[in-house]
Amino acid sequence: MDIVKYFEKVKDKVDRRLEALLQKGTTYPHNIHEAMRYAVLNGGKRIRPILTLTCCEAVGGGASDALVTACAIELIHAYSLVHDDLPCMDDDDFRRGKPTVHKQYGEAIAVLSGDGLLTYAFELLAGIKPAKSAIRVIRELSTAVGTKGMIGGQVVDIEFSDKKPTLPIMDYINIHKTGKLIAASCHAGAIMGNARIRDARALLAYGEYLGLVFQLVDDIIDHDGYATVFGERDCVRRADELTRLAKKAVARVPKKVNVLIAIADFVRDRRK
Amino acid sequence: MDIVKYFEKVKDKVDRRLEALLQKGTTYPHNIHEAMRYAVLNGGKRIRPILTLTCCEAVGGGASDALVTACAIELIHAYSLVHDDLPCMDDDDFRRGKPTVHKQYGEAIAVLSGDGLLTYAFELLAGIKPAKSAIRVIRELSTAVGTKGMIGGQVVDIEFSDKKPTLPIMDYINIHKTGKLIAASCHAGAIMGNARIRDARALLAYGEYLGLVFQLVDDIIDHDGYATVFGERDCVRRADELTRLAKKAVARVPKKVNVLIAIADFVRDRRK
Repeated sequence: MDIVKYFEKVKDKVDRRLEALLQKGTTYPHNIHEAMRYAVLNGGKRIRPILTLTCCEAVGGGASDALVTACAIELIHAYSLVHDDLPCMDDDDFRRGKPTVHKQYGEAIAVLSGDGLLTYAFELLAGIKPAKSAIRVIRELSTAVGTKGMIGGQVVDIEFSDKKPTLPIMDYINIHKTGKLIAASCHAGAIMGNARIRDARALLAYGEYLGLVFQLVDDIIDHDGYATVFGERDCVRRADELTRLAKKAVARVPKKVNVLIAIADFVRDRRK
Repeated sequence: MDIVKYFEKVKDKVDRRLEALLQKGTTYPHNIHEAMRYAVLNGGKRIRPILTLTCCEAVGGGASDALVTACAIELIHAYSLVHDDLPCMDDDDFRRGKPTVHKQYGEAIAVLSGDGLLTYAFELLAGIKPAKSAIRVIRELSTAVGTKGMIGGQVVDIEFSDKKPTLPIMDYINIHKTGKLIAASCHAGAIMGNARIRDARALLAYGEYLGLVFQLVDDIIDHDGYATVFGERDCVRRADELTRLAKKAVARVPKKVNVLIAIADFVRDRRK
């Protein structure tokens, strides 16, 4: 299983569809549509849409409607980054070596382009057939990124930006800010693939473990968060254990088990 | 037709449901849920939900599921006000005589509570039965408040905040920033009431006219926008003509014609 080639292939498919779905910069009002393209078409790794498409195929689903779902999830991820980068939040000037949206287009357009990406994601999801899947995916995602999900994680992260969080608080931040959308990416793929309940649960659990590994590895790389509490060696051990649990969770899904395992290893091994 | 009593009755119903739908301030993380309640439960007039419920009943629909739709629309309206008030946008310190959300809770929580209100609106809409109506309403609203709707209007409004807009630009701003959500509020009510196509179109047209009257009257009161271009007398004449067209549009809907007419007069007569 050459996971890098697999990633490239799926990422290319996602990027082409995102390019086609986003309004051109020539659509009035120009600057907001330009800013939205700038925020999304920036060389992101597309981990979340890759998970959605892979989980859909893992339960025997086709990739056509799951592709729109996958793209909507990437738009939601991009919106969260644009708002997180704002001066009143994490105040970041650069992302992936380029000026952040508010540096490039000003704060007002940054707030509004984030709003626009979130709104457009739901507009796209409402176009999914059949309507029953659309509704299930909208429910899944709106819960995952709402105030009891991703937004809640960001709120607590900001609250503790100038003080040392306890371990339960750090867990809360990571599970909500990063974990919920990654888990929902997997679960949404399962929903789009019409998964049996057992398989949908397995893929949701896989996504939950993966979300934690993702954050642990980020913290190891950045010497931040968990790494400051546990130390690097314990973080690596914890990441290994969670990766093992992620792989175990999907051992019996109908298809793509080897790809799901390779993705889990890839997420863990980013530190190397 | 005592329209003030009707408004009070329906407003009370909407307020009670909003109160029940919004998370308590004791739900973790506390400050975001407090801020969302603060933004919504602020004595707003609830014109949009009143339009939704009245238009639903105008086509013979029940008010139960339309009530959730009406509340979701008010959440979207509240989100737009919280983000519009931000320092990087209109920079307003007060709304309805109280400090704006960013003054009361800080800018980060203001951005995130707006995000939370928008997200929660879609979560609520996804719970509407039947799924087919839910999807139609989500499509209607996501389009109305996206970058070709309300957000687009706000973008152009900000762009022209320090220069004099031409009349077509002013029309663009008003139709998009104010008009689209008001028209969608009416159309969503028709959708929830399972309107025949003819009645749905009539109520959409009614909403479009009403949105323009709404903005004209605001401009007359504030000596702003249209009033600076046309002068007050021409604005009043234009508002009268649009009100007439709004009433004419709904002359043949199955029910509540007198209420719809009274609402149109009320919106126009706010100037008095």
